[in-house]
Amino acid sequence: MAGNSFGEIFRITTFGESHGKAIGVIIDGCPAGLSIDMDKIQYELDRRKPGQSAITTQRKESDTFEILSGVFEGKALGSPIAVTIKNEDQKSDDYGHLKDAYRPSHADFTYEMKYGTRDYRGGGRASARETAARVIAGAIAKQFITHSGIKISAYVSAVGKVKLDKNYQQLDLQQTDSNIVRCPDPEVADKMIALIQNTRAKGDTIGGVITCVIKGCPIGLGEPVFDKLHAELGKAMLSINAVHGFEYGSGFAGTEKYGSENNDAFYSTAEKKIATKTNFSGGIQGGISNGMDIYFNVAFKPVATIMQPQSSIDNQGHDIEVKGKGRHDPCVVPRAVPIVEAMAALVIADHLLRHRTTQL
Amino acid sequence: MAGNSFGEIFRITTFGESHGKAIGVIIDGCPAGLSIDMDKIQYELDRRKPGQSAITTQRKESDTFEILSGVFEGKALGSPIAVTIKNEDQKSDDYGHLKDAYRPSHADFTYEMKYGTRDYRGGGRASARETAARVIAGAIAKQFITHSGIKISAYVSAVGKVKLDKNYQQLDLQQTDSNIVRCPDPEVADKMIALIQNTRAKGDTIGGVITCVIKGCPIGLGEPVFDKLHAELGKAMLSINAVHGFEYGSGFAGTEKYGSENNDAFYSTAEKKIATKTNFSGGIQGGISNGMDIYFNVAFKPVATIMQPQSSIDNQGHDIEVKGKGRHDPCVVPRAVPIVEAMAALVIADHLLRHRTTQL
Amino acid sequence: MAGNSFGEIFRITTFGESHGKAIGVIIDGCPAGLSIDMDKIQYELDRRKPGQSAITTQRKESDTFEILSGVFEGKALGSPIAVTIKNEDQKSDDYGHLKDAYRPSHADFTYEMKYGTRDYRGGGRASARETAARVIAGAIAKQFITHSGIKISAYVSAVGKVKLDKNYQQLDLQQTDSNIVRCPDPEVADKMIALIQNTRAKGDTIGGVITCVIKGCPIGLGEPVFDKLHAELGKAMLSINAVHGFEYGSGFAGTEKYGSENNDAFYSTAEKKIATKTNFSGGIQGGISNGMDIYFNVAFKPVATIMQPQSSIDNQGHDIEVKGKGRHDPCVVPRAVPIVEAMAALVIADHLLRHRTTQL
Amino acid sequence: MAGNSFGEIFRITTFGESHGKAIGVIIDGCPAGLSIDMDKIQYELDRRKPGQSAITTQRKESDTFEILSGVFEGKALGSPIAVTIKNEDQKSDDYGHLKDAYRPSHADFTYEMKYGTRDYRGGGRASARETAARVIAGAIAKQFITHSGIKISAYVSAVGKVKLDKNYQQLDLQQTDSNIVRCPDPEVADKMIALIQNTRAKGDTIGGVITCVIKGCPIGLGEPVFDKLHAELGKAMLSINAVHGFEYGSGFAGTEKYGSENNDAFYSTAEKKIATKTNFSGGIQGGISNGMDIYFNVAFKPVATIMQPQSSIDNQGHDIEVKGKGRHDPCVVPRAVPIVEAMAALVIADHLLRHRTTQL
Repeated sequence: MAGNSFGEIFRITTFGESHGKAIGVIIDGCPAGLSIDMDKIQYELDRRKPGQSAITTQRKESDTFEILSGVFEGKALGSPIAVTIKNEDQKSDDYGHLKDAYRPSHADFTYEMKYGTRDYRGGGRASARETAARVIAGAIAKQFITHSGIKISAYVSAVGKVKLDKNYQQLDLQQTDSNIVRCPDPEVADKMIALIQNTRAKGDTIGGVITCVIKGCPIGLGEPVFDKLHAELGKAMLSINAVHGFEYGSGFAGTEKYGSENNDAFYSTAEKKIATKTNFSGGIQGGISNGMDIYFNVAFKPVATIMQPQSSIDNQGHDIEVKGKGRHDPCVVPRAVPIVEAMAALVIADHLLRHRTTQL
Repeated sequence: MAGNSFGEIFRITTFGESHGKAIGVIIDGCPAGLSIDMDKIQYELDRRKPGQSAITTQRKESDTFEILSGVFEGKALGSPIAVTIKNEDQKSDDYGHLKDAYRPSHADFTYEMKYGTRDYRGGGRASARETAARVIAGAIAKQFITHSGIKISAYVSAVGKVKLDKNYQQLDLQQTDSNIVRCPDPEVADKMIALIQNTRAKGDTIGGVITCVIKGCPIGLGEPVFDKLHAELGKAMLSINAVHGFEYGSGFAGTEKYGSENNDAFYSTAEKKIATKTNFSGGIQGGISNGMDIYFNVAFKPVATIMQPQSSIDNQGHDIEVKGKGRHDPCVVPRAVPIVEAMAALVIADHLLRHRTTQL
Repeated sequence: MAGNSFGEIFRITTFGESHGKAIGVIIDGCPAGLSIDMDKIQYELDRRKPGQSAITTQRKESDTFEILSGVFEGKALGSPIAVTIKNEDQKSDDYGHLKDAYRPSHADFTYEMKYGTRDYRGGGRASARETAARVIAGAIAKQFITHSGIKISAYVSAVGKVKLDKNYQQLDLQQTDSNIVRCPDPEVADKMIALIQNTRAKGDTIGGVITCVIKGCPIGLGEPVFDKLHAELGKAMLSINAVHGFEYGSGFAGTEKYGSENNDAFYSTAEKKIATKTNFSGGIQGGISNGMDIYFNVAFKPVATIMQPQSSIDNQGHDIEVKGKGRHDPCVVPRAVPIVEAMAALVIADHLLRHRTTQL
Repeated sequence: MAGNSFGEIFRITTFGESHGKAIGVIIDGCPAGLSIDMDKIQYELDRRKPGQSAITTQRKESDTFEILSGVFEGKALGSPIAVTIKNEDQKSDDYGHLKDAYRPSHADFTYEMKYGTRDYRGGGRASARETAARVIAGAIAKQFITHSGIKISAYVSAVGKVKLDKNYQQLDLQQTDSNIVRCPDPEVADKMIALIQNTRAKGDTIGGVITCVIKGCPIGLGEPVFDKLHAELGKAMLSINAVHGFEYGSGFAGTEKYGSENNDAFYSTAEKKIATKTNFSGGIQGGISNGMDIYFNVAFKPVATIMQPQSSIDNQGHDIEVKGKGRHDPCVVPRAVPIVEAMAALVIADHLLRHRTTQL
């Protein structure tokens, strides 16, 4: 049973290899009647696209999407929304030398072992180009969840050892896109940019962390005991290329704490709403949203393709040396911000719909 | 769409409230012909059960399981295996005072909001007692994956700020169960035990980390692009009560590294197998197991129930004071070790079967 | 991937072999807050139970059900509802002689081939006893759909060549349970009963047809293009033991008709509702309910177990003679009426919930 | 939860409205390594396409398919295979007059009620054009199941009251495509063709029956208790536009029979294989294939669009008269033969893969 679908009700299936004819996505279960704003989809794609700034890959990719079905006179029909992006700037020649090679920390070896075959051009299905399809679907999901007053904001909180020491409440998240690294603190952003440029100059790559905040989430989303809201968010994030960790609320730091420090006391607000004084629970208790802000961190490893020679082997087991050709990102997190938001939006959209079926 | 099932082919559905008649699990898709060793199921349940040592809750729970179906003459029939555990030591009186209360950082509030009702006795469906059903299913999954030579070993690697500074390769994992905190380093174990006892004496609780290692996993498990092996493991772990974080391979620490440091070089072993010199990938590349050891960390927050007075509110919005009654764990990680192993076994069992359908 | 679950949102999983410890069902996704009337469950079980009349098997089966979870203070919690029925009157000795035999038109041979093993006692998992679990779940589904004003009524419309020549609108469906064959026309019922008794006297069995009518179904249920309402009903019916055919609306007879005869003209009712003058569509157009009565026929083959000697082979390929022992139904349709209703109720309940997610 | 996907492991999702930009299908779970013969796909599409003969609609539709992903160097990669067909001959003007009308026995009314909106051009999503996507997927499924020696053959067995009185064993199924109505008996075919032509001349339409035979199916396919092989076939067939009935084996006729007549006696063949002397079970016992031929009948109602004036209403409830414009089929069964085969192939492909996970 293959794993190219995500979500139960608001459900997407992505397809496409990086150097095939097209990539794309089908969204099944998008509520009928939703107005689809094409500009908002393009806006999110532009945030993800290569070549957008000095610190991303300079590769150009087509990112002109086409909606083939499911939208009529600007509105969702309730039938599957199929969207494609053609692959155009396919420098397949860049990859011919890698046909038989297993690049370190790439998926070449595991794909070939699993499937007995692979499209070796540019990573094929394992390429991060697949995430463009997620961003399209996420942009539609965002338009749906906006109707429930939900807003998702991700930003870069660490590049290598350069880390934001403020939490999301101390930041103006409107500033995230004001700089090319997408860190809402301009001073830290500058340091991150410098580190990335320095890293690229060495032909190397560097990891980072993205923090994501979901505001306005209604109480009640999440389906215990397995599809807890944070478990679904965690899976969504871990399914993004290069992600190696996820934590929400007090996260790993919370493992060092006492219950008396970590518990969130309930109180009645002036508006007679129930809230918690602290929010170490990260807006989720028992796997269900409690109305407070949801926030989590996503850990990205350094990009595997580096411009330095590395020893490896080919599919005959012979020692070889590989070295990145072409145009690659020295750090993936600036471009991954819209991907994190997209996956979060897909989870929330799905759970908004799932929750509709909970009560009599 | 409710969330009480896990897995696609080796698929479990758990049921039961902590103070209802019984809890249990149905396992559908267990391969026919598998010999089921009852003692091995009981062994795992005993590792999870309350009252097993001085540092766990002293509550007694029945953990006598009964298999109702799906096993005939000691072997799996290929039909659903239904297993129940009756609830006996139900001190529902311990909870009557909490009928209208929302305990801090518990699921009382969110369950009541989501479902419009709840079984307030002992946490009901949100109780960690549910995990006994997972342990049963996991014990059967373990028996299945053993046929493929796979072995799963979890252990406690941190309690509060007391942390193991050795990685799993520097430890003798056979020692894990030699002490009551389930840390394979006896010296560190002693410190952990002391911290837990000290914490309990204060009426408080403390968090911790469990590390899990999967050895012998065949190459090829995991289903990109969404059901990557680590994404499935991550969801499995995050679905366990009190878990707030998951990382695999180089994890969050890897975000600080350069690609040239973090990449795993391939080489041919003396036996002409392909292996990597380092294993920062944690045995998974492109979401597919590569034959190296899989390892990951799971972050547990401190248990929410503390023996100290806490301010909260009731379902009328009135201020109240709550204080844990009954018998609770000062630290959940020693008893969570078999739960982590069980959930890991369920993921691996499911993916072994899913992988069977990959190639012509 | 095993097939013991049915439904997407209102989802059941049945378990149990006829001569194991128990059979049962888990219902996941039953809306929280639903009042569960135990008497109504028992009522439906009693309609299905063996030994209820002179024309059914005289075998006694326990049909005392127990709800283990998911219901608290008489209402559904929104968590899984697990229900069991213990197996008591297990005359396993009746079956010992069949351990190695493949009875004609039974599932003995195919189960052994598929699973490599089988519980040969009384049909094991293939026994019609499994349908008791469906009746329980269906009884709960009925209680849910009643809130939407939906009523399901099935009845026997043919036994062998004795057929009702009236359609459901010409009958008083309140009379269905007034006789032991469950045919609402008393005169035809008498003929059916006589045929069944005559058939039993010869040690033989006979087939029959059940017609089912669903009144009050709201417009809009059904999920094209694959989960059309009639496709889901068809699958539900075909999954019942001994069913060999399904037709709805004009059915097979409609294949002989012209479009000008078969089309249903729309009109506005006095209450300004939209209705059709005829209803050859069977209440479903384009796979979606249109508010008219839904009706369909279900074909049951004669029961395979007959009291006459039959030639067959054993699992060594040797010729043997088999002859039914024990107590079996000469005709299954009288007891299958509540099963047909149960499966229909499960489909409608599931689609009521699925439909909630359709529009913005 | 929308219903545009079919199959669990070999899983398809179709998309597209008849007059949108394109229709298409994603196949996820096609085994890696399968050689994909494009000509065989086109061959099946040509069997389905409009305008192929004097007795089908004379509408021309583009049926040039394009594979966007999942196939590399002629073989399946194991990733999703996305295929599109552009919509070209879109005479949307033919439908403008139907924007507000509810055509009798069409899906106009139910779609508008369910989704609150619809693409009224040519039936939109409810158009039979969607079945072209199924035929593509089925053509790939056929190529997969051929590796297991399975052959699927459907043919027209009735048009209106003109019926084949031979069963499939008395026919040469190689002759099916030798005439335009796809009935393997030339004499009966002529009568069917005459009836269809006569019906068209009257501006009317007529129903019919397709019989399908699956030879070479291995023993063991089908997943009790709900996903029995015939239940899955039944659902597959009932999901095809205009289908109102399904029966397999002895079907509805079997309801008139005695068990002693209907039971299939087992015997050992000369090759020491187990077979049955008769095959009223239709190759499936207990929901599992038994190695004998599988055969079933599918009932198609007459096409709803007729060239005669019919009374109906519009979406304001006003009386209107509608009359078919454009080019429509007087009888759908000749073109539905490849659709029936495609859906059967999809079921068998899925169950071949599902069965791989059954045993240890």
